[in-house]
Amino acid sequence: MKMFASDNNSGVHPEIIKHLTMEAERHDFPYGEDSTSEKAKEIIKKELGKDVDIYFVTTGTAANIIGLSGLLQPYEAAVAASTTHINVDECNSLERFNGSKILTVDSEHGKITPDSVKSVLGNIGDAHSSQPKVICISNLTETGTVYTKEEIKALADFAHENDMYLHVDGARIANALEVTNTSLKEMIGDTGVDLFSFGGTKNGLMMGEAIVCLNPNFKRSHKYSTKQGMQLISKMRYVSVQYIPYLTDNLWLKNAKAANSAGRYLNEELSKMDGIEVIDYSNANILFVKMPFETIEKLQKELYFYVTDEEQGIIRLITSFDMDKSDIEGLVDLIKKCHK
Amino acid sequence: MKMFASDNNSGVHPEIIKHLTMEAERHDFPYGEDSTSEKAKEIIKKELGKDVDIYFVTTGTAANIIGLSGLLQPYEAAVAASTTHINVDECNSLERFNGSKILTVDSEHGKITPDSVKSVLGNIGDAHSSQPKVICISNLTETGTVYTKEEIKALADFAHENDMYLHVDGARIANALEVTNTSLKEMIGDTGVDLFSFGGTKNGLMMGEAIVCLNPNFKRSHKYSTKQGMQLISKMRYVSVQYIPYLTDNLWLKNAKAANSAGRYLNEELSKMDGIEVIDYSNANILFVKMPFETIEKLQKELYFYVTDEEQGIIRLITSFDMDKSDIEGLVDLIKKCHK
Amino acid sequence: MKMFASDNNSGVHPEIIKHLTMEAERHDFPYGEDSTSEKAKEIIKKELGKDVDIYFVTTGTAANIIGLSGLLQPYEAAVAASTTHINVDECNSLERFNGSKILTVDSEHGKITPDSVKSVLGNIGDAHSSQPKVICISNLTETGTVYTKEEIKALADFAHENDMYLHVDGARIANALEVTNTSLKEMIGDTGVDLFSFGGTKNGLMMGEAIVCLNPNFKRSHKYSTKQGMQLISKMRYVSVQYIPYLTDNLWLKNAKAANSAGRYLNEELSKMDGIEVIDYSNANILFVKMPFETIEKLQKELYFYVTDEEQGIIRLITSFDMDKSDIEGLVDLIKKCHK
Amino acid sequence: MKMFASDNNSGVHPEIIKHLTMEAERHDFPYGEDSTSEKAKEIIKKELGKDVDIYFVTTGTAANIIGLSGLLQPYEAAVAASTTHINVDECNSLERFNGSKILTVDSEHGKITPDSVKSVLGNIGDAHSSQPKVICISNLTETGTVYTKEEIKALADFAHENDMYLHVDGARIANALEVTNTSLKEMIGDTGVDLFSFGGTKNGLMMGEAIVCLNPNFKRSHKYSTKQGMQLISKMRYVSVQYIPYLTDNLWLKNAKAANSAGRYLNEELSKMDGIEVIDYSNANILFVKMPFETIEKLQKELYFYVTDEEQGIIRLITSFDMDKSDIEGLVDLIKKCHK
Repeated sequence: MKMFASDNNSGVHPEIIKHLTMEAERHDFPYGEDSTSEKAKEIIKKELGKDVDIYFVTTGTAANIIGLSGLLQPYEAAVAASTTHINVDECNSLERFNGSKILTVDSEHGKITPDSVKSVLGNIGDAHSSQPKVICISNLTETGTVYTKEEIKALADFAHENDMYLHVDGARIANALEVTNTSLKEMIGDTGVDLFSFGGTKNGLMMGEAIVCLNPNFKRSHKYSTKQGMQLISKMRYVSVQYIPYLTDNLWLKNAKAANSAGRYLNEELSKMDGIEVIDYSNANILFVKMPFETIEKLQKELYFYVTDEEQGIIRLITSFDMDKSDIEGLVDLIKKCHK
Repeated sequence: MKMFASDNNSGVHPEIIKHLTMEAERHDFPYGEDSTSEKAKEIIKKELGKDVDIYFVTTGTAANIIGLSGLLQPYEAAVAASTTHINVDECNSLERFNGSKILTVDSEHGKITPDSVKSVLGNIGDAHSSQPKVICISNLTETGTVYTKEEIKALADFAHENDMYLHVDGARIANALEVTNTSLKEMIGDTGVDLFSFGGTKNGLMMGEAIVCLNPNFKRSHKYSTKQGMQLISKMRYVSVQYIPYLTDNLWLKNAKAANSAGRYLNEELSKMDGIEVIDYSNANILFVKMPFETIEKLQKELYFYVTDEEQGIIRLITSFDMDKSDIEGLVDLIKKCHK
Repeated sequence: MKMFASDNNSGVHPEIIKHLTMEAERHDFPYGEDSTSEKAKEIIKKELGKDVDIYFVTTGTAANIIGLSGLLQPYEAAVAASTTHINVDECNSLERFNGSKILTVDSEHGKITPDSVKSVLGNIGDAHSSQPKVICISNLTETGTVYTKEEIKALADFAHENDMYLHVDGARIANALEVTNTSLKEMIGDTGVDLFSFGGTKNGLMMGEAIVCLNPNFKRSHKYSTKQGMQLISKMRYVSVQYIPYLTDNLWLKNAKAANSAGRYLNEELSKMDGIEVIDYSNANILFVKMPFETIEKLQKELYFYVTDEEQGIIRLITSFDMDKSDIEGLVDLIKKCHK
Repeated sequence: MKMFASDNNSGVHPEIIKHLTMEAERHDFPYGEDSTSEKAKEIIKKELGKDVDIYFVTTGTAANIIGLSGLLQPYEAAVAASTTHINVDECNSLERFNGSKILTVDSEHGKITPDSVKSVLGNIGDAHSSQPKVICISNLTETGTVYTKEEIKALADFAHENDMYLHVDGARIANALEVTNTSLKEMIGDTGVDLFSFGGTKNGLMMGEAIVCLNPNFKRSHKYSTKQGMQLISKMRYVSVQYIPYLTDNLWLKNAKAANSAGRYLNEELSKMDGIEVIDYSNANILFVKMPFETIEKLQKELYFYVTDEEQGIIRLITSFDMDKSDIEGLVDLIKKCHK
């Protein structure tokens, strides 16, 4: 049975494997100075409609932290929802690698607004206080909600008005684009985003994340920080090549649609069950589901998943690109079995 | 034509691709908590003849630096030949990630001895001075020379007598084992090595390095440092799985033999040419070759390689696991063409 | 007119100046290896009733951060009230110097309890999360409240039960001892505190803070970290000598009594005024006072002080060791003038 | 008897004590926002003939490292003689605080030239290598030699031609000015120096060092880095006030003259003795003296000093501002007694 704890439990799309296999037969330059990496970068730039700086890495944490390190001095801070990945799931990587602090602000369902950021701008210019410099959001958020392109533009505008930058962690960007029916150019390229973590691992790549720096002022930094951050992969082309089929013929959006559709089907089916309620759901691939404690307990014996609220009985379920209707039906049957 | 600038220009062995392809079809736990990673660790432990701690990462720099960070306090230092990778080729990753300094000592052909380490032990206990704590060597060294298991044991013994540790960067360990006809257990498991970077990328893997901590006192640290060092890969099993075919049926040693044999054949052929001299060569896959300036210049138009000594006219050539006699013949013909 | 914005606006006690003057005429060893520093350490140990490790530094931030760096690995975290100095007033020094994060917990009037610490212990053992390792409190707290020795013991016991440590930032420890009528031995020496920042600057020293490590397991670290933290002062004895008169004939407690008494007298006088309310006050030298906006505005033209709550109209007033009744009467007259 | 191991064994000049005593009686703003600190900064600017940024700190290490942190990114390197204080005597503070590496170059008697710097510029632009960005010299050097203003200008020009900066560690700048009969304006203000550590501790201050940033492009950084570097002293005016008498009526140059004259007298006397040779001496206050092993051994029983070359029998003697002819005569008598 497929797994629903996270979309990083998933496999790798056959097209990706095919291109890795072809690349395996050739020699080429290391450290991203090869023709494949060049081609992958060109395709990404085309999707964004913009000339940007791109560095391929192997973890989302690296994309976020090395990317941010280029925009932040050690005495400056990232501003983020307390629920954000960089705040709770990266074992203070930013703090260690860059010395910078994360100033957390209130969020609603994982989403922040210019107003929530304002709460930490009071000490600008005071040497005793970390200086807020980059607003960080994830899209999808970690709670499964989605920012629209208008909301992102509002945050970017606010950031720039306050001499700050905007970073978007796009570990699930394809899912966000699909559910909002927006293009990457519209959501990231045209909204004023300064830094973008272009994740692919959760959506069918083997491992592939890209630091995309849209702000042209930070070129020098990321080149060296990627190496110093231990992420200048010698056979880089085996990371970069994955982006070629991924962004060809809309494979990435098809994958996202498959994952989101599985999520939507799951939502439909769960909504039919008495005593089970889907909450915090935005039509993408992350569902938070409230169910009776006994149901959770029985289900835990058959399936691995996160209980995100032990007191209220809320669990998280995530669907993946390589799931179809029958996979969801299998899960629904299992839940039904545990729920009666 | 295949490339001779480095063995990281090479492809990926078909057996590795085969196992990645199989793994691509399954779901499993992320972050190395999957059955594949468990199996890969068991195989490595068996090769070492020892129960050790293993963390898979995607770059040699990460294996070295995250590994060392577990053994070094920020006020302590690694002791290494000035030619070592961690000193010249990692853009002060150790300094940034851990605050530690690298104290360099004299080496002969890239190799150090207990005597050379002694030169930096004078300030132990003085708060003004970095405290030397780990001796770092590479095997093969960056200059293509090799340490025998006896030499490694002597360094480990010396380290322990001085309340220090020994780290071996094994980016090319398979080549070192082949050329010395030694097993991994004999060279690393039984000599007292505390920390080992078990590299596979240069020898036929797609990307795969492992932090192997043989000293049982540092368990807690590496677990968190790997995450904090941005190297806890979500789909970890696509790294770890590569070690399974690699260590099965001696594939890794066969690959090393192919690379080393290519090097030896190249040495034979070059040694026949007047005005060309192979220096600093230890029968493995790295050759430093002295040739006339005009030959170098002509060759540079056809082939990419490093000139390691511009004044003396010395270039570096490295052979790879996926080369055979005909590849070397091609190179030799090219050199001949440029040399007349 | 004397200043009420902070007790660091104050002068230096004449006894301190006298000893500095005597020390100025002699030669002695640098870096704390002198007889004066030795004597100062002995006096501190006697006050604590314990053999401890002591390192003199020149800022409270240094005492806190270098002290904590000895107890915390970079992937570990300090647990503190969100209002604590290390969280809001040290420009992420801990994050930069040590890589560690600060996990904030709810506090009541700046004080935390074992129960509030429990809220951040949920992810122990999870590599994605900063590992909580040291509980940090200030006594006095930054909001002027005070921990009793029983409360400190309860936190120390809780810390040790959970494989953690307790750090007390004693920037105003003398004020806390005076107001609770407790000795340093009772409050710090006997309660299980692992690390103590023994501040004197706010209470009559010129500049003098001491890292006091009561836990015997961290000897090696602080010696080097003090140097690496840029705080190994060459003419160290001009810091350490200040502690000799400070701790002789109870000068430090007399100073604290003078400051606290001034605070108590101010409280009495302010409590008599209609429309002015002293809140968050614990009989020591920090008063939070609610007054009408117009009063605050008028007062700001004559006196510098912090408005800690602009919406509610709350200001902070701090009395110093070198104030007497007439200084308070001067302030009270001024407030009266502005308040009518 | 006075001490000759270092000039930091010395006392404090009575004028400094006098001003500290006066300052002790007043209240004023903390963190350098007081009128005294303002006045001290004005005096320093006047001496330099330039509008510069000034931050007072309490150790030379802090002046160097926090100063450099403003000019260096973590992937960049300082270039210095291997004998420099920041390389051998600061327990890798730069590495920990800023992540930066120190690239060492050959020096003659502790002095470097544009030519020696060239040796580390080969890897500019290569992400694998630390990028050299600041040339660091000390004047006086740690070996007692002195740079002239012309030599400093040549290094500054070379630095700027190569997109680098020049830092001068002036822990003994007054001694250098005296021996070369040069003004601070001529040597530092007018030569193109970007960053200057203006030390006073070794020359009669109690403790006082200043980060002086002459390059106007780094204003933002040092303000926050001084705090983050744990050196924003709350009662800052007790550091800054020392510079007022120090720079009034040429006290600092008189002190330097006293120390240097003592050195010159010592040199004269030692030069008269058979079997004793003064080497590496530049007419300032640091003497390296070669003497027979038996003389050294006997002398060690009576006096503390550093043996800088055990094999050749070379010791270091440093004279201080508070020494006069009789102090030197005392030392000379002692050496005579041990030498026969």
